[in-house]
Amino acid sequence: MLSLVSRSFCLMVSGCQGSRRSIATVISGNKTSKLVRDRLRNDVEKMKVQFSGFRPSLVVLQVGDRDDSNLYISTKLKAAAEIGIDAKHVRLPSSATQAEVLQSVLSVNENPSVHGLIVQLPLDSVNRIDTELVTNAVSPDKDVDGLSCINAGKLSRGDLKDCFIPCTPNGCMELIRQTGVSVAGKHAVVIGRSKIVGAPMHDLLLWNHATVTTCHSKTPDLPEQVSRADILVVGAGRAEMVRGEWVKQGAVVIDCGINHVPDETRASGKRVVGDVHYASANQRAGFITPVPGGVGPMTVAMLMENTVQSAHRFILRHQADR
Amino acid sequence: MLSLVSRSFCLMVSGCQGSRRSIATVISGNKTSKLVRDRLRNDVEKMKVQFSGFRPSLVVLQVGDRDDSNLYISTKLKAAAEIGIDAKHVRLPSSATQAEVLQSVLSVNENPSVHGLIVQLPLDSVNRIDTELVTNAVSPDKDVDGLSCINAGKLSRGDLKDCFIPCTPNGCMELIRQTGVSVAGKHAVVIGRSKIVGAPMHDLLLWNHATVTTCHSKTPDLPEQVSRADILVVGAGRAEMVRGEWVKQGAVVIDCGINHVPDETRASGKRVVGDVHYASANQRAGFITPVPGGVGPMTVAMLMENTVQSAHRFILRHQADR
Repeated sequence: MLSLVSRSFCLMVSGCQGSRRSIATVISGNKTSKLVRDRLRNDVEKMKVQFSGFRPSLVVLQVGDRDDSNLYISTKLKAAAEIGIDAKHVRLPSSATQAEVLQSVLSVNENPSVHGLIVQLPLDSVNRIDTELVTNAVSPDKDVDGLSCINAGKLSRGDLKDCFIPCTPNGCMELIRQTGVSVAGKHAVVIGRSKIVGAPMHDLLLWNHATVTTCHSKTPDLPEQVSRADILVVGAGRAEMVRGEWVKQGAVVIDCGINHVPDETRASGKRVVGDVHYASANQRAGFITPVPGGVGPMTVAMLMENTVQSAHRFILRHQADR
Repeated sequence: MLSLVSRSFCLMVSGCQGSRRSIATVISGNKTSKLVRDRLRNDVEKMKVQFSGFRPSLVVLQVGDRDDSNLYISTKLKAAAEIGIDAKHVRLPSSATQAEVLQSVLSVNENPSVHGLIVQLPLDSVNRIDTELVTNAVSPDKDVDGLSCINAGKLSRGDLKDCFIPCTPNGCMELIRQTGVSVAGKHAVVIGRSKIVGAPMHDLLLWNHATVTTCHSKTPDLPEQVSRADILVVGAGRAEMVRGEWVKQGAVVIDCGINHVPDETRASGKRVVGDVHYASANQRAGFITPVPGGVGPMTVAMLMENTVQSAHRFILRHQADR
């Protein structure tokens, strides 16, 4: 049903161009993330009633004062507040040392009333801090960003029920689900192998039983690889690199790119585009995410989902211990 | 040079069939594993001289008394002895509880004179034991089987220098290296996604910069996927399932299968075959591993390599601490 809803939405958005050429159904991240957030608000409300005032709790740990981090954090705090998650912003000064940052992480790890902890990256410190060390210091059962080695290991080996899935690929899977296209048995192609997008995306598609090909900067025949994808997820970080003519007719195209390109027609002198050349790809794809308004809004929604899931697991463990 | 050596070896083995058809070069695991073991014996000898009698040390923990496990363990102990690794076999009775097994693991973890610990699987106990729990209890810096979540996480996210790589895929990479064929930029296809073969094999090929496709039981078009592989690694567990006519001309074919099939011409009534139909595949492949004598002998050699590597890391940490 949801895919029908999206399709109507698409026709509203794209069908008005007066063309009879096949145009892809737009998979709206704004719409899907709202569905997720509404569902989570209901879940949290139920938890509150069932467990006398219980609320999922999230800590966002920031080092320093980067403008972009401040903006991302305020978006996360706002989403949490709307859902009913108790989110705290812990800010360390940019003079914080690695030992101080680790100490903050450990103190949140040990606080039984906190269910999720994320460390806002990049760390903005005047001191040298090993980001991997900090990321891996987060307790695996509070690691709602899913970035620790232990969660990556579980995901990569198929233990999906027992880990936290990184938010961006988890959001991509939710968008794919909205299309109604079944992943099992399909040929999926992922472009990119980063820790937060490409690599976990490969794992998710594989353990949802797609045949998965991972492409990257060393892939010599990208157009040919892309042309075989029933499902294409692009996290390459290069503006409009995937051309429409590469895309298989009817494919599901998920674009994780956020790139700023010059645009003299805008007051800001620039605009945001994805890693896929949208105008040509939507002539061939069956479903496509726009940029902005596609994958972007899903990332915060899935962070909230992981936090609520962590709170659920906490309740289950707590009940088992009694 | 090694690839030339293998090629001569092949001509000795395969060239005598009097045919002028192109026949694949055999990649000998017996030969390559001997090269690895000889190198390790030299390394261990040097360590011994340099660090006054120091020897890498390995513990093999067994629960119960399975015949197949006994055989595997004796092969490992023999290889260790030849290289100069001090290997101990710790055997718990099949009456051992999970808590007792975990206690044994922890006591080896805490013993600073042991550099490698493997738990022989499957656990042969009359009690219910969570194998994952035991595997993950092994300290990541002694986990020379590379089966813990932490090591899997590091490998899957490309931190190859900072983890232990599971022995069978590590052995496959060594065999691929022997061919002289460069992995970067090639299209590799892996059949299977098990924790000990397929999944880590994907990671290794990816982080050696191949474009990698993972196929499995839900892949509908296996012959077509296989036909695109410059490098094909098969860990499917099905006798001779990959047919020669699927194989791309000149491909590197690595067969991890060990299957027993009926053979009335043998006294035992059976023989061992791989997952690849050898007789037809060696007419198309450029390089191919035989079964037996291909991947099999590499697994133990790479376990020894990981143990020696662990001892090296131990020395480096010890020096850094001083």
